[in-house]
Amino acid sequence: MIQKLITNIKKTNAPIVVGLDPMLSYIPKWLLNNCYGEFGQNTAGASEAVFRYNKAIVDATYDLIPAVKPQIAMYEQFGIDGLIAYKRTVDYCHEKGLVVIGDVKRGDIGSTSAAYATAHLGAVEIGGKKYAGFDEDFATVNPYLGSDGIQPFVDVCKEYDKGIFVLVKTSNPSSGEFQDQLVNGKPLYEMVGAKVEEWGASTMEGDYTNVGAVVGATYPEMGKVLREIMPHTYILVPGYGAQGGTGKDLVPFFNKDGLGAIVNSSRGIIAAYKKDEYASFGEKNFADASRQAVIDMIQDITQYL
Amino acid sequence: MIQKLITNIKKTNAPIVVGLDPMLSYIPKWLLNNCYGEFGQNTAGASEAVFRYNKAIVDATYDLIPAVKPQIAMYEQFGIDGLIAYKRTVDYCHEKGLVVIGDVKRGDIGSTSAAYATAHLGAVEIGGKKYAGFDEDFATVNPYLGSDGIQPFVDVCKEYDKGIFVLVKTSNPSSGEFQDQLVNGKPLYEMVGAKVEEWGASTMEGDYTNVGAVVGATYPEMGKVLREIMPHTYILVPGYGAQGGTGKDLVPFFNKDGLGAIVNSSRGIIAAYKKDEYASFGEKNFADASRQAVIDMIQDITQYL
Repeated sequence: MIQKLITNIKKTNAPIVVGLDPMLSYIPKWLLNNCYGEFGQNTAGASEAVFRYNKAIVDATYDLIPAVKPQIAMYEQFGIDGLIAYKRTVDYCHEKGLVVIGDVKRGDIGSTSAAYATAHLGAVEIGGKKYAGFDEDFATVNPYLGSDGIQPFVDVCKEYDKGIFVLVKTSNPSSGEFQDQLVNGKPLYEMVGAKVEEWGASTMEGDYTNVGAVVGATYPEMGKVLREIMPHTYILVPGYGAQGGTGKDLVPFFNKDGLGAIVNSSRGIIAAYKKDEYASFGEKNFADASRQAVIDMIQDITQYL
Repeated sequence: MIQKLITNIKKTNAPIVVGLDPMLSYIPKWLLNNCYGEFGQNTAGASEAVFRYNKAIVDATYDLIPAVKPQIAMYEQFGIDGLIAYKRTVDYCHEKGLVVIGDVKRGDIGSTSAAYATAHLGAVEIGGKKYAGFDEDFATVNPYLGSDGIQPFVDVCKEYDKGIFVLVKTSNPSSGEFQDQLVNGKPLYEMVGAKVEEWGASTMEGDYTNVGAVVGATYPEMGKVLREIMPHTYILVPGYGAQGGTGKDLVPFFNKDGLGAIVNSSRGIIAAYKKDEYASFGEKNFADASRQAVIDMIQDITQYL
């Protein structure tokens, strides 16, 4: 799967991913009201609005981008209706040829991790037939439980040609509380990074493995070190834009071939029309504002590569 | 919410929780075939079987136990249908007066953790009305992202009188890979444990807080130290039975008042009829086997307290 992602990145010349993390407050009132009118002012109406909002943004940007990253928490909060909107979003993005990174941050002990891997990357077998649950291409995974929590994901990745991104150094302010603690003189995230490279070793496709890492744009110095520790690991970089990372900060996350990293922006793209910079598009044309924000983000990042 | 759990524990004199983690291979063939016949041999039929299996076990044991812990991964693998069975299970257990610990192991950066907390413990607001997503009483949470990933859960716990259990030292063989690493001469899990006590400080209800900890039965020596580091923290103890922990191992997890810990068993209870010990119940009476296994587990644990 990592090669499919790389092919999409090369085709678009855009090492970026659009985070489909809709909050109700991002969705224009006219769109919300349309859905409330048709489906009720409840979780069904809200979830329909979430899907239509995503669809409009995908329709306006899919030719420019290699991948999307829906954040499942934003859907899960609406319960079953929200998860239906999540699944519709995954399927629609696949129809448009996009790689889908499910930002699910799952992770548990062995048999339970296997169930999560099945849910998001594999399929259950019932009466000799296979049924995929959510069927993303990649899933994000939390490493706190160690190798036996990760291995079931790796096994499913091999069986279904999928991939994962393991949290190594996250973009949030307090990520250092545990991740930066020194273990034998080195920060824990370096130890986790070395493990990621190891977990991926049996999943090589070309120069990279199907086991990637999450490293926040907000920590470029650490990104530089991790880039060296994990030479065959693709890095998913959140924290660009709204969280404070800038194009210049991203250089250390990439390899010399311009590959090796993919940068996420969520709010900065999907709620672009709310920023002064793109306000002239107006509420009606929110998706066109997202398209312009994608063009500007690609320019901001690629100018330094 | 911790006081509701303690009240239930005192009422039943059973510091245990039944893990509702159904695998298809646990469900008797006759029950599976009934559901496949009615709903199709697909995820709808399988999910119905999961719910009926849970319901039979709950009906046979609810008067003996204070709480259940459904593991969402086992449902999520069936996609939307599975999550409907999860929600039906949560609701049914509430009807029977049980405290429901959603074993969801969520955790992310601030705004995303807030969405997960809303999904499982709170409610979204749409048009001035509140809609709960899954509405468990407690959720398990992964601490790798640090305080700003935990605080939104704590906030929702306060608003809705709910609780969380934070992963501190997990029961699996490779949990030590990161959790046992020495930080300033002490293992990381002790540092996380100290943080759990701190995160809970503003949520005290009687002698305990609404921020509990997960510590595996498979590591009783570590449980003893953590019990001391976290005097106001309830400990959820997985790993009893199938994973190797025994009644005698559990003493260090409890306080002198016989409170402070709640021990989970999943397979050992819900698939009891498959063990030689309970085989005489037969497939038809699988739920009665579970009842006997609950009685035996309570006896095994309380004899040492």
